Amino acid sequence: MARIVMKFGGTSVADLERIGNVARRVRAEVEAGNEVAVVVSAMAGVTNQLVGWCQALSPLHDAREYDAVVATGEQVTAGLLAIALQQQGVDSRSWLGWQVPVTTDDAHGKARIEEIEGAALIARMQSGQVPVVAGFQGLGPDRRVTTLGRGGSDTSAVALAAALRAERCDIYTDVDGVYTTDPRIVAKARKLDKIAYEEMLELASVGAKVLQTRSVELAMKERVRVQVLSSFEDVQGTLIPGGMLPGTLLVDEDEIVEKAIVTGIAYSRDEAKITVRRAPDRPGIAAAIFEALAGESVNVDMIVQNVSADGNTDVTFTVGRADLPRAQAALDEARARVGYAEVLADPDVAKISVVGVGMRSHPGVANTMFRTLAGKSINIQVISTSEIKISVLIGAEYTELAVRALHTAYGLDAA
Amino acid sequence: MARIVMKFGGTSVADLERIGNVARRVRAEVEAGNEVAVVVSAMAGVTNQLVGWCQALSPLHDAREYDAVVATGEQVTAGLLAIALQQQGVDSRSWLGWQVPVTTDDAHGKARIEEIEGAALIARMQSGQVPVVAGFQGLGPDRRVTTLGRGGSDTSAVALAAALRAERCDIYTDVDGVYTTDPRIVAKARKLDKIAYEEMLELASVGAKVLQTRSVELAMKERVRVQVLSSFEDVQGTLIPGGMLPGTLLVDEDEIVEKAIVTGIAYSRDEAKITVRRAPDRPGIAAAIFEALAGESVNVDMIVQNVSADGNTDVTFTVGRADLPRAQAALDEARARVGYAEVLADPDVAKISVVGVGMRSHPGVANTMFRTLAGKSINIQVISTSEIKISVLIGAEYTELAVRALHTAYGLDAA
Repeated sequence: MARIVMKFGGTSVADLERIGNVARRVRAEVEAGNEVAVVVSAMAGVTNQLVGWCQALSPLHDAREYDAVVATGEQVTAGLLAIALQQQGVDSRSWLGWQVPVTTDDAHGKARIEEIEGAALIARMQSGQVPVVAGFQGLGPDRRVTTLGRGGSDTSAVALAAALRAERCDIYTDVDGVYTTDPRIVAKARKLDKIAYEEMLELASVGAKVLQTRSVELAMKERVRVQVLSSFEDVQGTLIPGGMLPGTLLVDEDEIVEKAIVTGIAYSRDEAKITVRRAPDRPGIAAAIFEALAGESVNVDMIVQNVSADGNTDVTFTVGRADLPRAQAALDEARARVGYAEVLADPDVAKISVVGVGMRSHPGVANTMFRTLAGKSINIQVISTSEIKISVLIGAEYTELAVRALHTAYGLDAA
Repeated sequence: MARIVMKFGGTSVADLERIGNVARRVRAEVEAGNEVAVVVSAMAGVTNQLVGWCQALSPLHDAREYDAVVATGEQVTAGLLAIALQQQGVDSRSWLGWQVPVTTDDAHGKARIEEIEGAALIARMQSGQVPVVAGFQGLGPDRRVTTLGRGGSDTSAVALAAALRAERCDIYTDVDGVYTTDPRIVAKARKLDKIAYEEMLELASVGAKVLQTRSVELAMKERVRVQVLSSFEDVQGTLIPGGMLPGTLLVDEDEIVEKAIVTGIAYSRDEAKITVRRAPDRPGIAAAIFEALAGESVNVDMIVQNVSADGNTDVTFTVGRADLPRAQAALDEARARVGYAEVLADPDVAKISVVGVGMRSHPGVANTMFRTLAGKSINIQVISTSEIKISVLIGAEYTELAVRALHTAYGLDAA
C-alpha cells in the first residue's frame, strides 16, 4: 500500500470518454490498495480559448481577472472526474484551490505555491475517498483566485505530493516517458527508466519540455519521486502491482546506481547569436552591455569574450530568438555608452547539449563531443559548460546531424 | 444619483462583442453618476453544455460536483466583463459567490440564498468601483459552491439589490418588457410600464417566463423595484437621465395609481387534464387520490369535484403535461385503495388566465370572461380563481382564439 498523487494533463482529459478512462485508471490504483489523490488540468484547448478571450478583450488585461477566468478550466475537469469516479463506485470529491487551500503569493498569472494544507485531504484519503484537486490554481493573499502559469498543474501535483507526504507523484501525459533525445530526430532514442532531477532540469530547460521546469525544481527540493508516464497505454499493462514501472522515474542522483556518462542529448532552435564587435577592452565593458540588455528584460545565455587585440575585444552571446529585435534595439541605444564598432546578429543557430550526472566523474566528455562534431565538419561557434552539461552553438542546419552523431558517440542508441 | 444593480442574461453576454456592449451600457450608468453593481449569467449555451457533460457521465450525478462544474459559466463571464469594463476606463472587479460571500442553504443544484454580505461591495461602489458578481452561485454551509437552479441569476440580482439597498434592479434580457399578453399571438399586445409583483407572479407562473418566479417573490418580499428591459436596444435611447424608463417596472400595488381591471392575459399549453370517474363519495377520497400523486412528486393545479350521483363522484384536475405518465401510473397503483371506476386523461388542453390587481374592486370580471368565451363557442372545462386571477381550462386548439378575444374584451388592445 502506498500513498500516491496522480496528475492528468489536458490531452488525457480532453473529452468525456478520456475522463472515463482516467477514472478507470484511478480506480485500478485504489483497488490495488493505494491511497490516491488526483490533480487535473483543463480539458485540451479550453485554457487557450479562455486566454484568447481575455486577450481579445484587452491585450493588457488585469491578471487577477485573467486568473478568475482561466482557472475555470481545471474546476470543470475536477468536478467531471469526481462524477466519473463516483459513477464507477469510487468515493470522490473535487477540491478547488481556495478550498484546500493551496495558498500562493500574489503574482497573479504566474503565482508560486507557498503552502498546501494537507490535513483534510489526508483524512479523506485515509477514509477511502479520492480527492480530485483542480491543478494550476491557488488562493492569493488578496483572497482571490491565482494561477501558476502555463504547465502549472505539474507543479500543483508535485507540491501536493510533498504536502501529502506521498510516496510517488505519477504525471500522466501524452508521452510515455523521458527519452535520451527527441525520437522524432533519432529513431534509436531510448526511454529512460530513471533520470536524476538535475539532469531533467537541464534537459527541460534546453527544450525537452515534458514537465514544467518549476515542478522539477520543486520535486528536487522536496525530494518527491516523480514518474512521467503515458495515459494512453492500456490500463492493465501499466498496473502490475509491485512490478516494473512503465514510465520514467525522476529520482535523486544517489538512487541511480549505474550512471551513464551522458544521459541525454537536447537541442534548442530558439536561439540567436549576437556579437558586439571591437568594444574597448576595459573593466566594466561587459557590465555596460549586459545591463543594457537586462533593462529590456532580455535574458542572455552563453557568453564568450575574445582576447584583446589593439585594446579592443569582441563579445559574443546568445539570446532567445524572440528577444532578438529588443536586444538589437537596446544595444543600438547603448552604443555611445559602450563604444563598440558594430553589432552582428545571427538567428540561424542551434544549441546542442549533452547532459549527464556521470560526467562529474568522467573526464574527456567534452573532448568526445568536439571530436564527434569535427568528424562531421560541424563548426562550433560558442561553448558553455556546467557540472553536468556541455552546450555548443552550431549552425541551425546541422541540428539533426549533430544530435544523431552525438547520440551514437555516447553509446545511447538502442540495440 | 442612484445605486442600481444591473443584471445581464445569457443572450446579452453571448460573445465578446456583446460583452463589450454590456460594458458600454454599464459605463453609461456610471457616467450618469450612479453607483452600479452588475450580476451576470453564463454566456448563452455554456450552462447547457456543462449540464450535458454532467448528465452524460452519470444521470444521477452528485449535485455538489454539478454545482462546481456549472458555476464556472458565470465565473468566466464575470471576469471577462470586469476586463471589458477596465478596458473602457471603468474601475471594476469580479466577485465569485464564495468571495462576496453569497451564503445559501445546502440544497445543492437548487439552493436558496440566505444572506449576502453587502458591506465590502458598498464600500467599493462608493469609491467608484463596479463590482461584477457571478450570478446563479453561492457558498453552502459545507464551504462548497452551490447553484440556485435554472434562471437563478435573476434571484441573485434581486437579492443583491436588497443587500445593497439599491434603488432599482435592472434586469436586461432578450425581451424589452412585460406585455399584456404574448405578442406572438396578439399583434396588438401592449408593453406595460408598470406591473404589481403579485400580477407578475401570476403571469410568470402561467407561462409568461420573463423572470424566474423566485426572483419575483423575493422582490415582493424585500420591496425591490425591478425593471425588465432589453439589452439589444440602442444605448442612447434607454438612458435619458431622469426621463422615462423604457422597460417594465415591477412595483408595489400601491404605486400603480390607475389600476386596469385586467392587466394581462396568460396561457399555458403545458397542462394535462385527468378525470377520476365514479369514485365513492365519502370523506377522505380526495386525500387518497392526491396523496398518491404527491408520493410521485406530481403537482396538481386546478381541481373540481362534481356533485355526487348514486353515491359516486367524478374528480377532475390538471397536472403538468410532462408528469402525466407518472400521474397515471400512481393512480393505477392506488386504484384498489381509492376504488374508482376509471381514469380519463386528456393532454390536449390549455389554461387561460386573466390577471389584474384591479379585479379585487371590480365585480363582474369573471362574467366577462365566461361571456366572451361563450361568444366564440369555446367550452370551459374547469374554472379556478384567486383574488387577482381567473383561470379556465379549454381545448388546446382554441388557445389563440381565446387569448385574442379576451385581450379585446378587457380593453387591452393597443390603439
